[in-house]
Amino acid sequence: MSNPFFKNNGPILLSDILSNLHITNYDVKENIKIDDIKDLHNSNKLDITFFHSNKYKEVAKNTKASFCLTTESLKNELPNSCTPILVKNVLVSVSKITSIFYPDAINDYFDDSSIDINETDFKDKVLYGKNVLIGKNVSIGANCKIGHNTIIEKNVSIGDNCSIGSNTIIRNSLISNNVKILDNCVVGKHGFGFFPNKNKNLRYPHIGIVIIEENCEIGCGSTIDRGSMSNTVIGKNTYLDNQIHIAHNVKIGENSIIAGQVGIAGSAIIGSNVKIGGQAGISGHIKIGNNVEIGGGSGVIRNIPDNTKVMGYPAKNIREFLRNN
Amino acid sequence: MSNPFFKNNGPILLSDILSNLHITNYDVKENIKIDDIKDLHNSNKLDITFFHSNKYKEVAKNTKASFCLTTESLKNELPNSCTPILVKNVLVSVSKITSIFYPDAINDYFDDSSIDINETDFKDKVLYGKNVLIGKNVSIGANCKIGHNTIIEKNVSIGDNCSIGSNTIIRNSLISNNVKILDNCVVGKHGFGFFPNKNKNLRYPHIGIVIIEENCEIGCGSTIDRGSMSNTVIGKNTYLDNQIHIAHNVKIGENSIIAGQVGIAGSAIIGSNVKIGGQAGISGHIKIGNNVEIGGGSGVIRNIPDNTKVMGYPAKNIREFLRNN
Amino acid sequence: MSNPFFKNNGPILLSDILSNLHITNYDVKENIKIDDIKDLHNSNKLDITFFHSNKYKEVAKNTKASFCLTTESLKNELPNSCTPILVKNVLVSVSKITSIFYPDAINDYFDDSSIDINETDFKDKVLYGKNVLIGKNVSIGANCKIGHNTIIEKNVSIGDNCSIGSNTIIRNSLISNNVKILDNCVVGKHGFGFFPNKNKNLRYPHIGIVIIEENCEIGCGSTIDRGSMSNTVIGKNTYLDNQIHIAHNVKIGENSIIAGQVGIAGSAIIGSNVKIGGQAGISGHIKIGNNVEIGGGSGVIRNIPDNTKVMGYPAKNIREFLRNN
Repeated sequence: MSNPFFKNNGPILLSDILSNLHITNYDVKENIKIDDIKDLHNSNKLDITFFHSNKYKEVAKNTKASFCLTTESLKNELPNSCTPILVKNVLVSVSKITSIFYPDAINDYFDDSSIDINETDFKDKVLYGKNVLIGKNVSIGANCKIGHNTIIEKNVSIGDNCSIGSNTIIRNSLISNNVKILDNCVVGKHGFGFFPNKNKNLRYPHIGIVIIEENCEIGCGSTIDRGSMSNTVIGKNTYLDNQIHIAHNVKIGENSIIAGQVGIAGSAIIGSNVKIGGQAGISGHIKIGNNVEIGGGSGVIRNIPDNTKVMGYPAKNIREFLRNN
Repeated sequence: MSNPFFKNNGPILLSDILSNLHITNYDVKENIKIDDIKDLHNSNKLDITFFHSNKYKEVAKNTKASFCLTTESLKNELPNSCTPILVKNVLVSVSKITSIFYPDAINDYFDDSSIDINETDFKDKVLYGKNVLIGKNVSIGANCKIGHNTIIEKNVSIGDNCSIGSNTIIRNSLISNNVKILDNCVVGKHGFGFFPNKNKNLRYPHIGIVIIEENCEIGCGSTIDRGSMSNTVIGKNTYLDNQIHIAHNVKIGENSIIAGQVGIAGSAIIGSNVKIGGQAGISGHIKIGNNVEIGGGSGVIRNIPDNTKVMGYPAKNIREFLRNN
Repeated sequence: MSNPFFKNNGPILLSDILSNLHITNYDVKENIKIDDIKDLHNSNKLDITFFHSNKYKEVAKNTKASFCLTTESLKNELPNSCTPILVKNVLVSVSKITSIFYPDAINDYFDDSSIDINETDFKDKVLYGKNVLIGKNVSIGANCKIGHNTIIEKNVSIGDNCSIGSNTIIRNSLISNNVKILDNCVVGKHGFGFFPNKNKNLRYPHIGIVIIEENCEIGCGSTIDRGSMSNTVIGKNTYLDNQIHIAHNVKIGENSIIAGQVGIAGSAIIGSNVKIGGQAGISGHIKIGNNVEIGGGSGVIRNIPDNTKVMGYPAKNIREFLRNN
């Protein structure tokens, strides 16, 4: 994943990484510096990677990483060039190491680097309201409007002809041309991602961003979380009504229409030309095809193929639903 | 519909209207000025009207308008005094022409005319917080309170003894006496109304307003959209809990009680003395009678007669629902 | 209930209390001063109590209160030391009298006592954003962050290492160490509690508070109402996702995980180690045991025992739900 916003703290000494994981029984022969943590496929020689499920056996055989967080039962699948580092819980260890490389991606404290727009160069090119704040690493295109009390926190790129409402907060987002984000929204905060742990949960980093493509509209009071390891994407000309919740890593295609109070759980993939009625909920990690219509109030818990109309909880063929009721 | 807030840009030359619709094969004999766009029934001689469905045949016969957007198959129903203007999609054309007459009713950009309440005459008659902004064409009655960071945008009338919370945004609304609107609400923005169009949807104007009658209460984080061609109305002494979404053109009667996270879709009509449980959803364009009780979590997709208790998804008689479950 | 925040206006003359209830046929022999209004069990000699249901007969026999709001049919259960005051509707009368003792607990007007944090002692110990306001009777621990435009209204205690986001409003709340409350939340406002009354409902006071225990996280756009006669409690290390609504008097145990857009109605009690999927709704006054898992979109309308997995509307055993669907 390209990551325009989160600064990589690497390279980091292998010994520092291991001590952070409280791994003491591993003998570091050569204390090299590790560049980054990446998945099996994208790793280079100086990266550390991770391998936690048999599903990834074939990719594991070909990883270029020199080190891999894994378990006793999987370690033999790795090539000789990759040294296994055995851990109890691979994903928790990934989270801890990602936190070392990207410490800013764990907690979304308010952006105390934001300053009044009047103190920035945007004051001459943007039409803005009272009490507008702008963080670091922000770009704003031509002919944009930003409403009162809105905070464009750090790491935001806004295209041309965009309109941001009042009382809205945005960070870690790429917003294309002609996008409208209405009032009281929160865009780009970390998702609801953590490892449950008695007394004190362990948050994992969110190094993804939010991408809102051109001509989109986001209704009042909506929340769009940024991705954890991938991005959250709203496709071109997709319209969201008020009070919608889009969780981390969700991808929505183009020309889709999503009515009020819909919630889409983490990592769900929604196609193009999809219509979702009010208050419908989409489970995490499922795939909704193109040209799908989902009735209001539905709860979708399984994949839905292209060109299908569904309704109900759990959602089924709409004709079947209406006939049974 | 009386429209106290949206300025009519008319009269507008008929030739300008036609060229906006890219109608070139119509020969303008007399380039008169058109006053307004109105429905078949309310039009006067110098208005343009529209006729898109057989349902309105009888009204069409008696329209007083001199011009009517319609189709080949309907044009013969119009009286001789009314010249048909043939278009492919009547409602899209209506939207375009309404946009010419009421250009402010399409996009809800933040109100950059709003100024600090300290610079207005309200500073001596309202109890207000920090950073309160007031737009143009705002009136506020006696003994009102307005919380911190709240923005009363343009075109708002607030009665006596009203309390508006903090971080709330209101525009295009008539609010009667003794109304409470709590924190983080957005009232009077345009609804989720547009014609889907590949690559770039076409928004239609919202020239309706929000009317909140006396003694109402609106909970935190709620959104109430203004009407498109009619108004959104919350009847006297009706209470809304937190995080409620009321879409455009919805009418709710008196003495109704609506619990948290309920959503009411566009143009639904809710009676008086209605109780709606938390998270229930009401489909658009349906009618809920008086004295109806709707169980929490229900999805109401059909009309409900007076004096009925319903529950379920789709909502049915509550005794039947509980017996089956 | 201990009540750290609401000032008791008592003692109040018995004659003033009676005239407020428009009770004229009761002959006050000795116009004593009443200290407080309390339930049957917790009352002392100089308190007034209330008795509205046969369920409380045994407690009524032993009340220490000298006066009791009750009905003709129940009055004979009271001891001789307690004088019955007969009223038509006991709970409405309780509400009226509680309002005399605790007038600040009825209406949640914005806190006009709040001042800019720069004018307080917190300016040297808190990391804060622009336009942060602080009310009376607020304490904030070490190493805390408070985001832009956030209002810590009166009667709030915040522990150490807490992070409050931007545009958030808090009042009447006890927040422990290491708590994160994200952006656009409203915490501690009165619940949706009133006696329906034609033309003008009668709000009852909320003298409870919100208690958020250590290590909790509250997602963006959430609303947590304070209790009416008891408190609203979020247990240690419980995480709430975005756009969640927690009504008055709800208690949630420790280590629970509540996904986006969940709503929990008034006085529901949720155990520890509970997982609730997105958009699920929990009815009021029911009890969810420990180690319960509730599927996304479920509507829970009955008690759920410990160690159970449920799904559906109404929620039933998850295996049964999936088999039937």
